Amino acid sequence: MKAFFKVTDLDAALDLRFDFKRVEMEEIPIHASTGRVLAEEIVSDVDLPDFPRAIMDGFAVRAASTFGASDGAPAFITVPRTVAMGETPSFSIGPGEAAKISTGGMLPEGADSVVMVEHTEAVDDETIEVFKSVAPGQNMVAVGEDIRKNSTVLTAGQRLRPQEAGLLAALGKPSVRVFKKPVIGILSTGDEIIPVDEVPSTGKIRDINSYTLAGQVVQAGGIPLQLGIVGDDYGALLDLCARGLEQSDMLLVSGGSSVGVRDYTVEALSALPDANLLLHGISISPGKPTILARVGEKAFWGLPGHVVSAMVVLHAVVQPFIDHVGGLDSQHRRQLACLATLTRSVPSSQGRVDYIRVKLVERENGFLAEPILGKSGLINTMLKADGLVKIDKHTEGLDEGMLAKVLLFAS
Amino acid sequence: MKAFFKVTDLDAALDLRFDFKRVEMEEIPIHASTGRVLAEEIVSDVDLPDFPRAIMDGFAVRAASTFGASDGAPAFITVPRTVAMGETPSFSIGPGEAAKISTGGMLPEGADSVVMVEHTEAVDDETIEVFKSVAPGQNMVAVGEDIRKNSTVLTAGQRLRPQEAGLLAALGKPSVRVFKKPVIGILSTGDEIIPVDEVPSTGKIRDINSYTLAGQVVQAGGIPLQLGIVGDDYGALLDLCARGLEQSDMLLVSGGSSVGVRDYTVEALSALPDANLLLHGISISPGKPTILARVGEKAFWGLPGHVVSAMVVLHAVVQPFIDHVGGLDSQHRRQLACLATLTRSVPSSQGRVDYIRVKLVERENGFLAEPILGKSGLINTMLKADGLVKIDKHTEGLDEGMLAKVLLFAS
Repeated sequence: MKAFFKVTDLDAALDLRFDFKRVEMEEIPIHASTGRVLAEEIVSDVDLPDFPRAIMDGFAVRAASTFGASDGAPAFITVPRTVAMGETPSFSIGPGEAAKISTGGMLPEGADSVVMVEHTEAVDDETIEVFKSVAPGQNMVAVGEDIRKNSTVLTAGQRLRPQEAGLLAALGKPSVRVFKKPVIGILSTGDEIIPVDEVPSTGKIRDINSYTLAGQVVQAGGIPLQLGIVGDDYGALLDLCARGLEQSDMLLVSGGSSVGVRDYTVEALSALPDANLLLHGISISPGKPTILARVGEKAFWGLPGHVVSAMVVLHAVVQPFIDHVGGLDSQHRRQLACLATLTRSVPSSQGRVDYIRVKLVERENGFLAEPILGKSGLINTMLKADGLVKIDKHTEGLDEGMLAKVLLFAS
Repeated sequence: MKAFFKVTDLDAALDLRFDFKRVEMEEIPIHASTGRVLAEEIVSDVDLPDFPRAIMDGFAVRAASTFGASDGAPAFITVPRTVAMGETPSFSIGPGEAAKISTGGMLPEGADSVVMVEHTEAVDDETIEVFKSVAPGQNMVAVGEDIRKNSTVLTAGQRLRPQEAGLLAALGKPSVRVFKKPVIGILSTGDEIIPVDEVPSTGKIRDINSYTLAGQVVQAGGIPLQLGIVGDDYGALLDLCARGLEQSDMLLVSGGSSVGVRDYTVEALSALPDANLLLHGISISPGKPTILARVGEKAFWGLPGHVVSAMVVLHAVVQPFIDHVGGLDSQHRRQLACLATLTRSVPSSQGRVDYIRVKLVERENGFLAEPILGKSGLINTMLKADGLVKIDKHTEGLDEGMLAKVLLFAS
C-alpha cells in the first residue's frame, strides 16, 4: 500500500464528489427549513400579491387626480369612503375621488396609486388637500409585481434561508420536500488517544478531532455520529468502520493515515467489502496525508490526525462532498468569503495548494488578514483564526499588502 | 400616542440593548456547543501538550547529531529503539543516537527534534543515514507550546466554534457552562393576515413574517416561539402579547406599528403592566416604523409589516439585542461581511441610515455588489439578495465603482 502514496491534485480530488449518491428526501414543516437543501422545484400557482395592495397608509387615488399638486397649489380630493382591512372594496374611485386606505389594504377599482397621509391635510370630513403628486403604481404593489403566477421561484438543490421559508409561506406551502441531513460518522484512531473524561498518563492525549469535526459537520448541515476512539488495532478498527458505514452516509476516520510505521486505516479500509481507494494523499498543505475511498456507495475518509490539518481538510475538501451528498447543487454553493489585505508575506510551494490561517481585523477602509503561523498540531492557531487564505498551486506565495480572498469560518 | 412618533438615531437605538438582562446559564455537553455562547472563563490547568510530542513520522534525535548532514555527506545515526505509541520511553537518546517514532509519539529524554523518515535511509537494522539536518524543536511540539498551563484560553461571552469545542476536549472538559438560547416570541398582526394553510380570499394575504423572522432568530442563535396571528383586535392582541412575554425572553410583533388609521400595537403595549416605550421610529430605511419598549425586564418590538422591512430591522437592529440578551459580549460579535464593488450608484437621504439589498457576484479580482431595487413589500428582492450595504447617515449615497461593505446574510 505504501507504494500507492502518490498525491492527487486538489481539483481532481474535489471532482470525485460527483460520483457519490445523494441522500434520500423527506418532507418537513417550513418553520424548520432554515439551512436545509430544497429537493423540489417550486412553481408559484398564484400571483403575489393577487390583489392591488397599498404599501403606505394614505389615500387610494387615480394618480391623474394629483398631477400638478404642490404646497402652493394643492389638489382637492373627495374622500367619501374607507377601505376596510382584509376586505374587497365594494366601490370604485373616479377622477377627483379617493378612499382612505391602510398599508396592506386592497385598492378599489379605479385607483392606481396611494397618496401618503403625510402629503395630505383634511379640509373637512369628506375632503382632503393633496400637496404632492403621485405616479401610477406609486405606494402600491400591483398584481403579480412580487411573484408571477406559473414562474419557477425556487429550484431543487438550493439551500433555504429565512426568506425562502417566507416565500413558501406566501405560496401556501406549510411543508416542503428537502434532502435529509447527511449522517457523518466520526472516528478517532491511535493508541495514544483517550476519551475526554479520562486523565491522560504521559504520552497520551485526549481526543480532540471527534469534537472539532463534529462541530464542522453541524456547520456543514450534516448530523455527526460520534463512533468513539479505537486504538491501533486492526480488527477493532475494521469492525468499527464497518459498523460506522452502515449507520452513516459518510465516514471520517482521523489519525493513522500518513505513511508511518503503522497505517491501519488503509489496511482496514482495504479489507472492507466493495472498497475502492480513490486517492491517498492530496497536494495541499496542511492535509496532504488524506485518504478517500469509496465503500459501496459511501465515501470513507482517512483524515490527518493533527487537529489543524483535519479541520482544514474538512473545510476545504470534505465539506464540498457533504454538500453534494446532502443534495446541494454546486452552482448554489455559497462560500462565505471576503477580501483582505495581507499584513505579511506568506511563502508557498508551487505545485500544491496552501491554506494559511488568518485573523481578520477590520479597519476604516477595509479588512486586514494577519497570517497566523504555527505547526499544524497546535489548536491555539485555530482559536485565533477567522478563516483561511488559499494559495493557488501555481503561485509561489503571497506578498505583504496584497488583497487576498479569505474563506471565512462559520461562527 | 401619535405625537410620540419622533425617530431615534440608529446608534442610540442600538445602545439601548445594554439595559436588558441576559438569559440564565446552563451546562451542556461540548459536542453540542457549536454556536453557543460561553458563560464561564476557561483557564487551562495543564500544559498542552504535557509531553514533548512528535508531529512527523521519523526518528527522534538530538538536532546536533544531524548538523551538516546532506545528500553528499549523510550523518550516520544508530537506532537501537522504537518509541511505542501512547507510552513513555524508558530510555534516553545520546549523541549519534535516534529512536524510531511515529506522529504523536513522546520524544525520549535527550531528543530535541525529529528527522522525517523521508530524509533518511536504512543502512542496516540498527543504523540510518540522515540526509538533512534538523533544528532543535523541529517536527515536534514542546511541552506547553500549544497551550500554557494557567493561561486564560476562553472568556465568557464568546461564541463557541468547533475549534473551541476541540480545545475544551483537550482540557478534559466534557461539558461547559453556556448561556441558554434566548426564546423569542413571534406574533403577526393584522385583519388581512391568514395562516399559511388557508386559501386567501381577496384582500387577504398569508402570514410571511412569522417564518422569515423565525428563521432569522434561529440564525441568530435563538429559539423562535411562534405565537400565531392576531387580527386588529385590541383585547386579543393584549392577551397574546402578555402570554407571549411570559413564555419568552423577547417579543417580536410584526405589522400594525406605523402611524396608520389603526395602531393597536402601541395601545396594547401601553396597557401591559410595567411597560415603557423606549422608541417609536428609528432613522433607518427600510424599517423606520419600528417600536421598542421595555416590559418588565424584556424587550417588546413592534416591527414593520412589510417583509423586507421586518427582515432588515431584525438583521440590523434586533439581532444585536438577541446577541446581548443571549450573553454575547459585544467585542466578540463577529459580523460576516465583505467588501465589494458597487455596480451602480445608490442614492440615500442624509440623516438616516439606508440599507440596500445587494447580490454578490464573484469576479477574478474581487466581488461585485449589484444593488437590488424594489419596494420593501416585495419578498423577491430578498430572494435575490446575499446581503445588505449600509449607507451611513452622514453619506448622501454611494457611487458606482465604490468599494462598499456588504453585511452578509447567513445561509
